[in-house]
Amino acid sequence: MSWLDLPSGTPFGPANLPLGVFSPAGDDRRRTGVAIGDLVLDLAAATGDPVHATGTLNAFLARGPRAWAELRAQLTGWVTDPAHRGAVEPHLHPRDGVALHLPVEVADYVDFYSSRHHAENLGRILRPGTPPLSPNWRHLPIGYHGRAGSVAVSGTAVVRPHGQSQTRDEPPVFGPTQRLDLEAEVGFVVGAGSAPGTPVPVSAFPDHVFGVCLVNDWSARDLQAWEYQPLGPFLSKSFLTSVSPWVVPLAALAAARVPAPERDPEPLPYLRDDDHPWGLDLALEVRVNGHLVSCPPFGCTYWTGAQQLAHLTVNGAALRTGDLYASGTVSGPAPDQWGSLVELSWGGRQPLPLPDGTARTFLEDGDVVTITATAPGTDGSRIGLGEVTGRVEPARC
Amino acid sequence: MSWLDLPSGTPFGPANLPLGVFSPAGDDRRRTGVAIGDLVLDLAAATGDPVHATGTLNAFLARGPRAWAELRAQLTGWVTDPAHRGAVEPHLHPRDGVALHLPVEVADYVDFYSSRHHAENLGRILRPGTPPLSPNWRHLPIGYHGRAGSVAVSGTAVVRPHGQSQTRDEPPVFGPTQRLDLEAEVGFVVGAGSAPGTPVPVSAFPDHVFGVCLVNDWSARDLQAWEYQPLGPFLSKSFLTSVSPWVVPLAALAAARVPAPERDPEPLPYLRDDDHPWGLDLALEVRVNGHLVSCPPFGCTYWTGAQQLAHLTVNGAALRTGDLYASGTVSGPAPDQWGSLVELSWGGRQPLPLPDGTARTFLEDGDVVTITATAPGTDGSRIGLGEVTGRVEPARC
Repeated sequence: MSWLDLPSGTPFGPANLPLGVFSPAGDDRRRTGVAIGDLVLDLAAATGDPVHATGTLNAFLARGPRAWAELRAQLTGWVTDPAHRGAVEPHLHPRDGVALHLPVEVADYVDFYSSRHHAENLGRILRPGTPPLSPNWRHLPIGYHGRAGSVAVSGTAVVRPHGQSQTRDEPPVFGPTQRLDLEAEVGFVVGAGSAPGTPVPVSAFPDHVFGVCLVNDWSARDLQAWEYQPLGPFLSKSFLTSVSPWVVPLAALAAARVPAPERDPEPLPYLRDDDHPWGLDLALEVRVNGHLVSCPPFGCTYWTGAQQLAHLTVNGAALRTGDLYASGTVSGPAPDQWGSLVELSWGGRQPLPLPDGTARTFLEDGDVVTITATAPGTDGSRIGLGEVTGRVEPARC
Repeated sequence: MSWLDLPSGTPFGPANLPLGVFSPAGDDRRRTGVAIGDLVLDLAAATGDPVHATGTLNAFLARGPRAWAELRAQLTGWVTDPAHRGAVEPHLHPRDGVALHLPVEVADYVDFYSSRHHAENLGRILRPGTPPLSPNWRHLPIGYHGRAGSVAVSGTAVVRPHGQSQTRDEPPVFGPTQRLDLEAEVGFVVGAGSAPGTPVPVSAFPDHVFGVCLVNDWSARDLQAWEYQPLGPFLSKSFLTSVSPWVVPLAALAAARVPAPERDPEPLPYLRDDDHPWGLDLALEVRVNGHLVSCPPFGCTYWTGAQQLAHLTVNGAALRTGDLYASGTVSGPAPDQWGSLVELSWGGRQPLPLPDGTARTFLEDGDVVTITATAPGTDGSRIGLGEVTGRVEPARC
């Protein structure tokens, strides 16, 4: 309950309180804000703490989980206790009037591949006749490093990238990608770093990860097919990765925790999570030009964010504030739960019909892709992760 | 010629003038320095420019190639014209008394795979009976993103990492790597960034890249073999990448430029470099516990740093100040020119004898690996890139 006049069913109710970076209309200065209903509360002004005027969340996140909990308790008090109305109200801005920015300065960006249904689909599409999962897949969360400098906030234009592609035994050709795809993913934002040489166990996940966002890991499938052997995806992914502007704290997702799917075989000890289940019941929705094309359920993801973090650091790699790692494309078992067009069009062989009478194999210039997600909140409401959106622009000459 | 009393044959003569970040004995403040002979000149003190007191080279490098050239001209005047003795001498420190730090805050780190001899050796070792090069190799500089947060300055301890490995059809096991390897590489430091969506042509290489350093991309071969399909190396590389502390400006390497090897087939237009040959005649030396084990010649690398940069950005990915990209392991055609132990021991099957009576397949605890390089200087001297070194420490429990 809040003294604020919140829209009924708002995804940004008092149980959510996601953090982001905004600038008000007519003011270029970036500051930290919290989304509440259709409003944004200016934390720099409301708290007087200069950490919220730095233009990214990094400096605040670096303070660690105790500071995160303290701020959350303070904010909860502010929005629920009418006694704070006078102190809070002057610092509220209509959300549709502010500019939203990249919430964190990304240190390292890692992308995992942890949806079994997605990995199996890709295996069947790309390597028919062989086992759909590589032998290592059920033993470790496969991942790779992406380009941190190409991570941008929702709304950034998706300029169709150029690159090399090759078909059959023809020489490769250079030109705009013909197979531009979306990937619906969930991202984890590292707040508190770790020392080199000190693995982070599964149990310490909430000591380091502040919260989650939505990620669209735009992909050029034709570039990827030609370049990825033997060292993995490179230019097919590095032109743009879009993230939602609001980072939902793990603390807001307590009611969304679910057991992860059964793992077979049992993981090695450093990946066991029986006492630390971090499956998250996030309901994703993917829209192309406003048409719902998929509802990927994040809860069935094979490896959780806690296991991904344990794996990422088990070799002694340090975490830094601002590290971002993403789940990999989220796909459920059913065809209307697949989180990429390469799956939804089965490798481009079965165009996906849209309600407007058109069909898609891959993205066309002008297409707008929007990914949203909701989750059960701790107060019985459904909270939202907001959206990550982007419009495809033609290749530049 | 210099009025300074420089050691005969010093790799840091007046034709070199590499930049680094140091702190003098008894003073924690990091500032930019230039190596000259056995000395380091404190640029923060000598120039009075606060950009040299920021603790990394980034802010200075971001000023761009004109500022780099102006500083170089000023420094050349200072060390060659005795009139400057009084102004310069108070700011010189003995090099062996200073602490050297990571010269740049690394933005994104990319590792290429551009030595044909190395790639062919790896193909023959890992995939016998198939063509040693993947079909894409001669069409594009294969590369992947590494972990920027794990890039550390020479001298950082190399703690043997843990991870999963697997042999034959046995279940994978977890433990310290048994196949810890070195990779002798050359790194390129991006000074001036670029805008998203704007590819950097081969011709613009010196407008963006400030200089070069040495890189040891430590690798755990057993972890790599198990994890790398289908998305490339991850934990096998992300525990540590060591770089030399001195960044040698491209301007110091004008006499080291050589034509690159002939490319067959002719590269696609965006990779053609006939008018911009950036082969570099750098003579690398790799030592294990002081014993010379390899002399990789960088000049025979198939794809140059200029081509790597053009490829890296051709999809519109932006450059940022502090981006670091490395050549990949440098290997020449002869066995004593191979830049990794997996090649020198042919996959661990032929131990490499050392003059001390021992032999190595892969690195043992306590081993010290040092990579150095020299190049022809513009004044007829040989200039040096300094060294990147590291000692292997036992795995931590």
